[in-house]
Amino acid sequence: VPNIRLIVEYDGSCFHGWQKQPNVRTVQEELEKVLKIALREDIPWLAASGRTDSGVHAKGQVVNFHCQNIPDLHRLKHSVSSMMKGELAVRAAEIVDDSFHSCKSTKSKQYTYTILHRHAPAVLDKGRVWHVADRLDIGRMQREARVLVGTHDFTSLQGTGCQAVSPIKEIFRSEVLHQEDYLIYEVVGAGFLKHMVRNIVGTLIAFGRGDMRLPSMEAVLAAQNRRIAGMTAPAHGLCLDWVEY
Amino acid sequence: VPNIRLIVEYDGSCFHGWQKQPNVRTVQEELEKVLKIALREDIPWLAASGRTDSGVHAKGQVVNFHCQNIPDLHRLKHSVSSMMKGELAVRAAEIVDDSFHSCKSTKSKQYTYTILHRHAPAVLDKGRVWHVADRLDIGRMQREARVLVGTHDFTSLQGTGCQAVSPIKEIFRSEVLHQEDYLIYEVVGAGFLKHMVRNIVGTLIAFGRGDMRLPSMEAVLAAQNRRIAGMTAPAHGLCLDWVEY
Repeated sequence: VPNIRLIVEYDGSCFHGWQKQPNVRTVQEELEKVLKIALREDIPWLAASGRTDSGVHAKGQVVNFHCQNIPDLHRLKHSVSSMMKGELAVRAAEIVDDSFHSCKSTKSKQYTYTILHRHAPAVLDKGRVWHVADRLDIGRMQREARVLVGTHDFTSLQGTGCQAVSPIKEIFRSEVLHQEDYLIYEVVGAGFLKHMVRNIVGTLIAFGRGDMRLPSMEAVLAAQNRRIAGMTAPAHGLCLDWVEY
Repeated sequence: VPNIRLIVEYDGSCFHGWQKQPNVRTVQEELEKVLKIALREDIPWLAASGRTDSGVHAKGQVVNFHCQNIPDLHRLKHSVSSMMKGELAVRAAEIVDDSFHSCKSTKSKQYTYTILHRHAPAVLDKGRVWHVADRLDIGRMQREARVLVGTHDFTSLQGTGCQAVSPIKEIFRSEVLHQEDYLIYEVVGAGFLKHMVRNIVGTLIAFGRGDMRLPSMEAVLAAQNRRIAGMTAPAHGLCLDWVEY
């Protein structure tokens, strides 16, 4: 049976995250519904590179599923995007090798977290950025962010209820870019724990504000204690950019 | 009496343009209302660097008004932005010389028009970009855009009902930037006619698609005939970036 891979963009504010749950609208469930209509067959399962939390956006989430008949991929992209009415769009669709699995085969992923750093609240970026008006030591945030590159125990930055087997993760890139009124945190890693990127950002902001009790990000990691790190930054500033296989 | 200058950002989709009109919600009227509450006095007039059409966004619209008492500027910014609930924000407020007039004193303005150029419709940029899925000759668009720099008769690119005294305008910069899936048209000029930027963009797209009857932008200008140029691009892709005095 054909194995179909889609790259999808979605507006996190329209969904309660990726994963199917009773009584709420999720990306997985809505996408299954429209795929069923577009393909005229049931999709027994639909996998993604990872779950995104409620409110988190995606520019390049990768999903895959098996179906009985080889679909017209151009038509599939078009009809799924059109049924999703601007809440989700299919950027690419292709038939891939049987062994491909959007979650199990991932090599790395990039997330971007965008902070609007000015007095005035967000208008044109509303719902896409976290507005932080406080004075920030941006150089400090940039230095502390880079400390995360490498393999570390991320217990201090792991959300409660995380089901990962190990808190040890490898980070390939971790940079705070400063562009006019924006601070853009870009992170590339082999995998991430629950709320990990949002907890990193909340901790970087605490360093920037100068209200961290610990002297450095190294000390935060060494503490292996979630309560020592900063707050969880709001979901709507976060976006899954791409996934590499 | 103090002359107050504000720099405001607004989401064009929330308003029927800048200028006050009966029965519709405009930036001018809503801003006058909240200024009246914030300052506890009537604002007899409120000028802007220029009217923006219905649906057009602004990152740096400049407005000014006179008031009886010297206001607390920090408080004014904060209370206007908070009453406008994410539809408009005050980015800067200052007391300026009596002679300053936000419309009459302008030296130049920059507008940006953003085109999303890919198959998939807009999701995260919905309402901020014009989605054009057609094949485009981008090099051609870039060359034709540059022809507009200088002083020209813009009759062919002037919207009907324009009340300008003369169709002759000076353009300082006119560039199509290509960044991943985006084509960003940036134009700086001393002044603009009604719908001029949107008509330029519609004409550039016609050149890009290869469906212009005339051989060049020079020929379009020389024709002095609105019907010879391209369509008016939709308002929601346009943004007033800044005004210089």
